[in-house]
Amino acid sequence: MDDDNSTKGAYVTTGSEFTRDTNYIATRITRDGRDGYPVEAGRYRLVAARACPWANRTLIVRRLLGLEDAISLGLTGPTHDKRSWTFDLDEGGRDPVLGYERLQEAYFARFPDYERGITVPAVVDVPTGQVVTNNYPQITLDFSTEWTDFHRDGAPELYPERHRDEIDEVAQRVFTEVNNGVYRCGFAGSQEAYDKAYDRLFTALDWLEERLSGQRYLVGDTITEADVRLFTTLARFDPVYHGHFKCNRQKLSEFSALWGYARDLFQTPGFGDTTDFVQIKQHYYVVHVDINPTQIVPKGPDLAGWLTSHGREQLGGRPFGDGTPPPPPRPAEVVPAGHGAGAA
Amino acid sequence: MDDDNSTKGAYVTTGSEFTRDTNYIATRITRDGRDGYPVEAGRYRLVAARACPWANRTLIVRRLLGLEDAISLGLTGPTHDKRSWTFDLDEGGRDPVLGYERLQEAYFARFPDYERGITVPAVVDVPTGQVVTNNYPQITLDFSTEWTDFHRDGAPELYPERHRDEIDEVAQRVFTEVNNGVYRCGFAGSQEAYDKAYDRLFTALDWLEERLSGQRYLVGDTITEADVRLFTTLARFDPVYHGHFKCNRQKLSEFSALWGYARDLFQTPGFGDTTDFVQIKQHYYVVHVDINPTQIVPKGPDLAGWLTSHGREQLGGRPFGDGTPPPPPRPAEVVPAGHGAGAA
Repeated sequence: MDDDNSTKGAYVTTGSEFTRDTNYIATRITRDGRDGYPVEAGRYRLVAARACPWANRTLIVRRLLGLEDAISLGLTGPTHDKRSWTFDLDEGGRDPVLGYERLQEAYFARFPDYERGITVPAVVDVPTGQVVTNNYPQITLDFSTEWTDFHRDGAPELYPERHRDEIDEVAQRVFTEVNNGVYRCGFAGSQEAYDKAYDRLFTALDWLEERLSGQRYLVGDTITEADVRLFTTLARFDPVYHGHFKCNRQKLSEFSALWGYARDLFQTPGFGDTTDFVQIKQHYYVVHVDINPTQIVPKGPDLAGWLTSHGREQLGGRPFGDGTPPPPPRPAEVVPAGHGAGAA
Repeated sequence: MDDDNSTKGAYVTTGSEFTRDTNYIATRITRDGRDGYPVEAGRYRLVAARACPWANRTLIVRRLLGLEDAISLGLTGPTHDKRSWTFDLDEGGRDPVLGYERLQEAYFARFPDYERGITVPAVVDVPTGQVVTNNYPQITLDFSTEWTDFHRDGAPELYPERHRDEIDEVAQRVFTEVNNGVYRCGFAGSQEAYDKAYDRLFTALDWLEERLSGQRYLVGDTITEADVRLFTTLARFDPVYHGHFKCNRQKLSEFSALWGYARDLFQTPGFGDTTDFVQIKQHYYVVHVDINPTQIVPKGPDLAGWLTSHGREQLGGRPFGDGTPPPPPRPAEVVPAGHGAGAA
């Protein structure tokens, strides 16, 4: 069984429930450098795919915290083959800093016999060209807590000490039931496994709908890591999960609070401006040939709704707490025209 | 290239646009019996699948006109293999009147070398066990115009002389752009063919949305054949075509007039009470292995919306004209509990 942000090939195993491989490279980049990789501006390169919800988290957090100067960014294309995500968006098909065609090269540079899937996001040590970590839940937390010396002025507290227990608790349920829950539906290997997965997913979405009816954000009254983690799944819900993964009791846009919440975040700097709907759809519909053998990418849905007013300000809350929104994305990191919510 | 109501196997041909085989057995059952098959009560058996939109038309028209005593009904199961639709819902797996396991037998009884797909609806001559016709557009028109001696009291005029030109014109556009348009999306063999098909479909749906904003029915102010033909596609739109065929600019329920119109018809005797959402979903998701290889059937969408008030009475119109609604369906012909709009 395999991940979606990895590249090992088949996604559906007949007769089985989908089980995510959650063994990642646990090395951390920390202030004290205890794993051999100290926080150091300019030393590391984040490799991400805009298409991937797990990688999209790192794009949002890096931008919210203003880590663009400290941690450079390499972007892979939206699709991959069984071997690797590839740098096919770059001139000559190579990452201009690492010189790699395939992200796999960074994994093999450190672990010549690496056998697990090649996943994004990954952080690569530029001097050695070796992958440091692909442990995405820790990557964003470390951006918040270990890289503080390099945060921009006005960076929000995404993982504030006083709310950590609640963030962890909410994020855990969101992970098992929603982030991974949509994959459990889409990669179910039997009708029974799918039916159970569908019920689990919508039970969790109903819980979120109720929770978010009375409060603007998942935890506290500001944006936190918990919101980042839920957002990247919600952004993919109507364009991909509803049809491709058969998560179709209703569209996200047919929820009231959840749809307002998702639009509120989308319209907040750092969220919608790191979301590339074209790449998102290409990724899922092209890569998963075992559930979409024609590889045809749907034209819909109409995404204009993401830009409509949501009225969530009435619930109070201060998105950035005592901080401020990030400035516009750097020109080199802007989502291409037509790939945002204006695209049909 | 092939139909969906037939059984010839592959649905998608790589690189090609989907082209429907519209060559049917043109024999007609008429009052004057000029093709050798005169109208005669008790002689013919309609074979239909509730799952199939083309067959569903005949179920609606037969019921609206009260032809149940004159023309008996055999129902196949929702799925079929490459050889034939089968009578797997019947005790012992055989149609109790024809004695057949497979509809194919009726085709071979008349044409031993029949090479086209075995399609529903089909009308079978009971004494000889031979198929008479599978030409579905003509079958319902002949129910309206040739079988008048057997219509119930209060049967509506579904193909009134004064509106025939307009019905034909609207039905033609609905056929090419909508009834068949959804298949052109779903069975497209290339991204380009799909993209074109999607645009054609939604152009037509926008036209219908506008037309139905100002009038209750498609032609005149009563239900006609044109409404029957559009309805069976609309009933399948959100449960199947939106996801399975990638007709996903928006759901039917996200149109205003079209969704009101569809619900108005659904709640009219003869329409919703011949619609079996469970069989509909099973059919498409199980049969089309080239676009849904897992054969998993989605649990959604929530169908409760079909029973909500639609407000279309405000547009005037008299559904049955000078006629009356049909009485409830016969017990043997009731859609199973849980298969209607109450099912999740």
